[in-house]
Amino acid sequence: MKHTSYADMSCSIAQALEAIGPWWAFLIIRDAFLGIRRFSDFERSLGIAKTTLTSRLRLLVEAGVMEKVPDSAGSKYHEYQLTEKGADLLPVLVALSQWGEQWTGTTHDEAIVVVDTATGTQIPRQIIRDETGAPIPLDRLTYLPRSELAEPSSSD
Amino acid sequence: MKHTSYADMSCSIAQALEAIGPWWAFLIIRDAFLGIRRFSDFERSLGIAKTTLTSRLRLLVEAGVMEKVPDSAGSKYHEYQLTEKGADLLPVLVALSQWGEQWTGTTHDEAIVVVDTATGTQIPRQIIRDETGAPIPLDRLTYLPRSELAEPSSSD
Repeated sequence: MKHTSYADMSCSIAQALEAIGPWWAFLIIRDAFLGIRRFSDFERSLGIAKTTLTSRLRLLVEAGVMEKVPDSAGSKYHEYQLTEKGADLLPVLVALSQWGEQWTGTTHDEAIVVVDTATGTQIPRQIIRDETGAPIPLDRLTYLPRSELAEPSSSD
Repeated sequence: MKHTSYADMSCSIAQALEAIGPWWAFLIIRDAFLGIRRFSDFERSLGIAKTTLTSRLRLLVEAGVMEKVPDSAGSKYHEYQLTEKGADLLPVLVALSQWGEQWTGTTHDEAIVVVDTATGTQIPRQIIRDETGAPIPLDRLTYLPRSELAEPSSSD
């Protein structure tokens, strides 16, 4: 289960990959977004061995992405839920999911989609936007070390 | 280098993970976004062995995420560039990068940030938005199988 460590790399992408852990972590996080909380339900959804699931959930708890809480129904069991840090991965999951739909043809009827309950429709493909919500064309983007940025405005 | 296969899973997230490949793929894709095209420059940036880099680039070409093209300067060497499918991973990279900045404290001066050249400032944290660019509050989102969606409107 050990994956290559990126911890010594200064890039925020590398740091995010290091913090989230291996790929499979996303499938557990996905299930948590879909409302799964109990060990046995994760086990059924993911189809992996109890021992594997135990160690994966432990790694996600250690990473601060999920937390163990008492069973909401009051039994002696516990449940797993996303922390604030874990719930904040939604934009990553949505971006991965939309790219997968676009490029791997995963558009069959049983695929889970993210729905805006205000409209009852699937949320649109997410694109890069500015603070006002206006799209930023890709040719307007560039990549710079933070030290080369102009001083931020005092708007926050 | 073999990672667990998710190819038999019907979820678009699992399909995306399968198509992108292991974590390290994102670091090569990141470098390609930053303008790296030559083998020797990827090698220097990533600090990995030539043989490792060769096999990783081959996997990304096989996945249709990158392509090998003649050297733009006209030498006998070739270069690597993102395909349309690869370039379309930008929202995933931005989401990963912004989560990493937020939660792993990768905010030092040399970290690369995505800049809107129209303003000269770092793009804002990306959030889930509707077609008009208005933010969708997270408690308005739900997850449904595509088959349970209302019929799409005929707007496109």
